Amino acid sequence: MARTGRRPGNSGTREAILDAARRAFAGRGYQQATIREVAAMAGVDPALVHHYFGTKQDLFVAAVEIPVNPIQAFIALVSEDRETLGERLLTLFLSVWDRADNRSPVLALIRSAVSEERAAAMLREFITEEILGRIARELGTPDATLRTSLVASQLVGIIMSRYVIRLEPLASAPSEVLVAAIGPSLQRYLTGDLGAAVGPAGGAR
Amino acid sequence: MARTGRRPGNSGTREAILDAARRAFAGRGYQQATIREVAAMAGVDPALVHHYFGTKQDLFVAAVEIPVNPIQAFIALVSEDRETLGERLLTLFLSVWDRADNRSPVLALIRSAVSEERAAAMLREFITEEILGRIARELGTPDATLRTSLVASQLVGIIMSRYVIRLEPLASAPSEVLVAAIGPSLQRYLTGDLGAAVGPAGGAR
Repeated sequence: MARTGRRPGNSGTREAILDAARRAFAGRGYQQATIREVAAMAGVDPALVHHYFGTKQDLFVAAVEIPVNPIQAFIALVSEDRETLGERLLTLFLSVWDRADNRSPVLALIRSAVSEERAAAMLREFITEEILGRIARELGTPDATLRTSLVASQLVGIIMSRYVIRLEPLASAPSEVLVAAIGPSLQRYLTGDLGAAVGPAGGAR
Repeated sequence: MARTGRRPGNSGTREAILDAARRAFAGRGYQQATIREVAAMAGVDPALVHHYFGTKQDLFVAAVEIPVNPIQAFIALVSEDRETLGERLLTLFLSVWDRADNRSPVLALIRSAVSEERAAAMLREFITEEILGRIARELGTPDATLRTSLVASQLVGIIMSRYVIRLEPLASAPSEVLVAAIGPSLQRYLTGDLGAAVGPAGGAR
């Protein structure tokens, strides 16, 4: 990924680490795989993996070539005005996904997830721990994990219907139309009344 | 599929027609494939294809082994009380999808759609013409196709997050929790205010 400020001679080591990481995540899942193990597979010191790639999340993001900034930007949105969060999340989401070059690595992950349980597990663990879990902690309510998984269900549905199956008119609707139409659903999932089925304590069941 | 009241000797012909249909739909897409062509590929008279399978939609549903009744039941719901449509649609949807034996044929279609453009086109045409198009005609408003594609985006998202990626707690939430949480979104997509981005005439752009 990033090439700035590194000597060309290091690229072999970086590639070996990324390759080991891909095998480790695919073989053992996101949760089970460790930096130590990836280092051993690549024949390098764990400190070097940390030096090049940072945390396990950073390594995963680099290995599967997910554009990293959107995830951090997503989580940063939660700390701002919560009453407009649904709309802001969706605006950011569409601006990232409407750029075709951002899509292919994540579509490749989804493609594996629908055909293999191991890939589905890896995607599930990554989304749960590193995206939804962090947003849920920012939200800080007892039912936050239910709320963030509802948001995820609508966003994954947009990925599938706008970019994969390409259902019209949703596939070519301007993003403002979708933000106006779908933003309020995300807002309700995040902060609204989820109905009588969720108890008064707001706990996810 | 249905075996009632047919002589065993006919099953070879039925299988030949289904096999031809699968090849025709996969090769030419749902829209382009014709009953006449399927009949020619199977070496039978078109009248026999109609006799065994009915319309092109019926033939597709039989060929890809989609449980047929849910689609008809879905469309029938629209003619009843429109103010509770979102909730009723979702209750029916979850009752069908929560049964594992109903899922595999549609998941197989989705699996092909994420890896091949031709399969995506087939799924898109089928969903658009035979499910969303019919519901949109029942709704009868000028922006009905945008509304039904918004509903589809949330339902496809439930399929992916509850049954494929299995994000918790959504994946194991009781269906009443999801109906209470997501039903109002579907209701708004079907009959509610979609925001300023949709013109006063309500036309989908």
